[in-house]
Amino acid sequence: MGYGSLTKEIFEELASAVGRAAAIIDADALENYAYDQAGRVWGHMPEAVVRPRNTEQVSSVMKIASKYRIPVTPRGAGSGLNGGAVPLAGGVVLSLERMNKILEIDKINRVAVVEPGVVTNDLCRAAAAEGFLYAGYPMSTETSFIGGNFATNAGGGKVIRYGSTRRHVLGAEVVLASGEILHLGGRFRKDTWGYSLLNLLAGSEGTLAIATKLIVNLEPKPGKVVNLLACYPDVEKLVESVAKVIGSGRRIISCEFMDRNLVKYTTEYLGCALPEQERSEGYLLIQVEGDTDEQLEEGYETVGKICLEGGAFEVFVAESRTDSAAMWNVRQNGLEGMRARDPYACASGDLMVPLSAVPEMLRRIKRISGEWNVEIGIISHIGDGNLHPIPLKPEGMTPERWASYAEEFFSALINEAISLGGVGSGEHGVGHVKQKVLTENKTPAELEIMRGIKKAFDPQNILNPGKMFFKLQ
Amino acid sequence: MGYGSLTKEIFEELASAVGRAAAIIDADALENYAYDQAGRVWGHMPEAVVRPRNTEQVSSVMKIASKYRIPVTPRGAGSGLNGGAVPLAGGVVLSLERMNKILEIDKINRVAVVEPGVVTNDLCRAAAAEGFLYAGYPMSTETSFIGGNFATNAGGGKVIRYGSTRRHVLGAEVVLASGEILHLGGRFRKDTWGYSLLNLLAGSEGTLAIATKLIVNLEPKPGKVVNLLACYPDVEKLVESVAKVIGSGRRIISCEFMDRNLVKYTTEYLGCALPEQERSEGYLLIQVEGDTDEQLEEGYETVGKICLEGGAFEVFVAESRTDSAAMWNVRQNGLEGMRARDPYACASGDLMVPLSAVPEMLRRIKRISGEWNVEIGIISHIGDGNLHPIPLKPEGMTPERWASYAEEFFSALINEAISLGGVGSGEHGVGHVKQKVLTENKTPAELEIMRGIKKAFDPQNILNPGKMFFKLQ
Repeated sequence: MGYGSLTKEIFEELASAVGRAAAIIDADALENYAYDQAGRVWGHMPEAVVRPRNTEQVSSVMKIASKYRIPVTPRGAGSGLNGGAVPLAGGVVLSLERMNKILEIDKINRVAVVEPGVVTNDLCRAAAAEGFLYAGYPMSTETSFIGGNFATNAGGGKVIRYGSTRRHVLGAEVVLASGEILHLGGRFRKDTWGYSLLNLLAGSEGTLAIATKLIVNLEPKPGKVVNLLACYPDVEKLVESVAKVIGSGRRIISCEFMDRNLVKYTTEYLGCALPEQERSEGYLLIQVEGDTDEQLEEGYETVGKICLEGGAFEVFVAESRTDSAAMWNVRQNGLEGMRARDPYACASGDLMVPLSAVPEMLRRIKRISGEWNVEIGIISHIGDGNLHPIPLKPEGMTPERWASYAEEFFSALINEAISLGGVGSGEHGVGHVKQKVLTENKTPAELEIMRGIKKAFDPQNILNPGKMFFKLQ
Repeated sequence: MGYGSLTKEIFEELASAVGRAAAIIDADALENYAYDQAGRVWGHMPEAVVRPRNTEQVSSVMKIASKYRIPVTPRGAGSGLNGGAVPLAGGVVLSLERMNKILEIDKINRVAVVEPGVVTNDLCRAAAAEGFLYAGYPMSTETSFIGGNFATNAGGGKVIRYGSTRRHVLGAEVVLASGEILHLGGRFRKDTWGYSLLNLLAGSEGTLAIATKLIVNLEPKPGKVVNLLACYPDVEKLVESVAKVIGSGRRIISCEFMDRNLVKYTTEYLGCALPEQERSEGYLLIQVEGDTDEQLEEGYETVGKICLEGGAFEVFVAESRTDSAAMWNVRQNGLEGMRARDPYACASGDLMVPLSAVPEMLRRIKRISGEWNVEIGIISHIGDGNLHPIPLKPEGMTPERWASYAEEFFSALINEAISLGGVGSGEHGVGHVKQKVLTENKTPAELEIMRGIKKAFDPQNILNPGKMFFKLQ
């Protein structure tokens, strides 16, 4: 790899850049920065961690790293599912946890200016307090950082209406591998003033630059919403309803799917129940918006009717905040529910297909799960065509074998998604867990361009090495 | 520059790739491809024009160009305002005019699949016929091609509600400088499967690749709209209303500004009149949407009230399609109106500032116009902070002198926009007309990255050379 060694002298330089207390070299403390939600088996120990407090410190760290060619892996909340924040080549983890301030809510330009370590939910709350909506809503909203959302172009539960994180980020201050600072975009929504590095950086998983400040779009306060839960005896029928719901012209904010297994294990974990669990093969959780009570009522009645006519045997309308919370609680805890059943439940599946291909994709998932002999639960932003099958480790398989087995299983599914006109990730990213299948599925010409882009930003390959399509040598 | 000469033999190769009738070498015919709406003074003659009919022919042309290192300038409708389609280095113009088919309206996935030479308005009409909205709405919608809209990330009159063209393009088939074909994105709305070349290509002005097919988003059919025309005795007061209108939470589709001069010359040109022209220093043209009559009424009444309280002496609500058309007719013909007054009226100004900085930017435009002794009319997507001052050539100045004078004038304005947190273009792009000021205003680090990106796509620099930040040597 040709990287420099992180000597005691270099560590001292780093420590004086960020302050002694913010530089970690103790092995026990390093352990916390060695893996993310992909699991320990995909982890790797860093040699040091630095926790800068501001842009200048980030810049200083990168200047030092650049001088000695030390790998630097930026890290947000560590809530990623593909090892994106894992320091594969060792070196330094640059944790953005202390850069966690909401700097400004700018009401006239309808933007918030935030540091990358702000928890997404805190931004949502701060925006709401000023009468706005921050429309990013990854399901990990309680833990994930806005910086990580930008790095993975995170999606979540409101993409149908508002789009992924790329759309919400209007400007950024970023630090390059060299330590230089760039300012991209700004407090505005149109920009055709040179190549859009900002839009390229969204979803680049920390391999091109480190965002140290983000200017994010705020939406006007949304209308009222109602949540519906539709119970289906048959997944094929459920899926047919989805295209009709999305195509109804009503204001659909979310359209989520949970299958029988997922609901079973998650309600057991939570000690709760969804209606009609005995009879239901799958649930649609749909959020409808309206500006007025009449519009809202017309909206959810139309959607409810579509579901009933499409084969749902019941549609429940949440009549209170408590009802809504109960429905969403199962959805939001789906991964935890599966992990309560089996701690090795694998969360990295993130298939993306056109809406029209969802029925066929679900059939293939079922078939392939059978062939691979894995039990799965499915949770899905189905209105986007984005499916998260969560497989459980077969009994008796070792965790090590399971890690690679699960990823081979996902690779098989990804190949199917691609053959149906889709891609291998809608919102989780590639990290290093999905590297092999990504590399196999992109053409040499596209890979070569991506490598050229990487070289333009980071000629020494020190930023988050070994991720996406850059295999560690 | 080191380019190859376009010999008779190479022309024959090109002609056999696209068909003899689609290869032009006659000087009179070439003339039509030598300039765009920036004007003849910014033009340059091509040595040949090819008009491929499909992707394979585009690929063949690029393979030939690549083999002999012949410059290729892709061209849409030629409606650009900064010389983006001008073959600065000679060589070949690749016109996409014959690739003009709407291939599919896919109702389930809510996308249209189109060739790049489709006139944007034709796409809008075809989508409407199927009950959808294509939300791109550049003011040149009657002439511009969807491929050119993608190349410049075109904006227009509905960006407040729907965003610029980048947001509408979900997938593309593109031909690289080498002739290789890539498929990017698809019939879906989430994608974090490698660097987003698609989002990078939007706004790259044909310097990185040639889009030969686009998959564009269709929105559900919008609600009803009403157009309002608010007349102000004072531009400062008008601008104060804008932030309030935008911040009202009502569904604003458009918020456009026209100043006294622009309205004067345009109504003279059209032989029509707007109300209160004698007393008005400026007009706001606002489009409000609502799902129901009640919502619509509440919306436009609220907006009307904001304008009246903000100093408008009259607000006219269009009561018929004819009323609305009359208002928009002036807005859409603003450039033609200024050019009827002076054929050298210069349309390339496209300042972008945060909404909060619009009042100060307008003051500076006024001051600087005085200092430079140019009469201007202003037309503006003011709700976006996007301003188009259109200067008239001072009497007695030669057209040649005026071309550079006007651009120096715009450079002075762009520097002010940047100092107010803005950029030099919101929707027109850079072309070669704005090259100098762009290059002066970007940092060396950002320019170097952009050049590295260019190199990754087009190592021989044959695609649209001399544009954006690539000066012809």
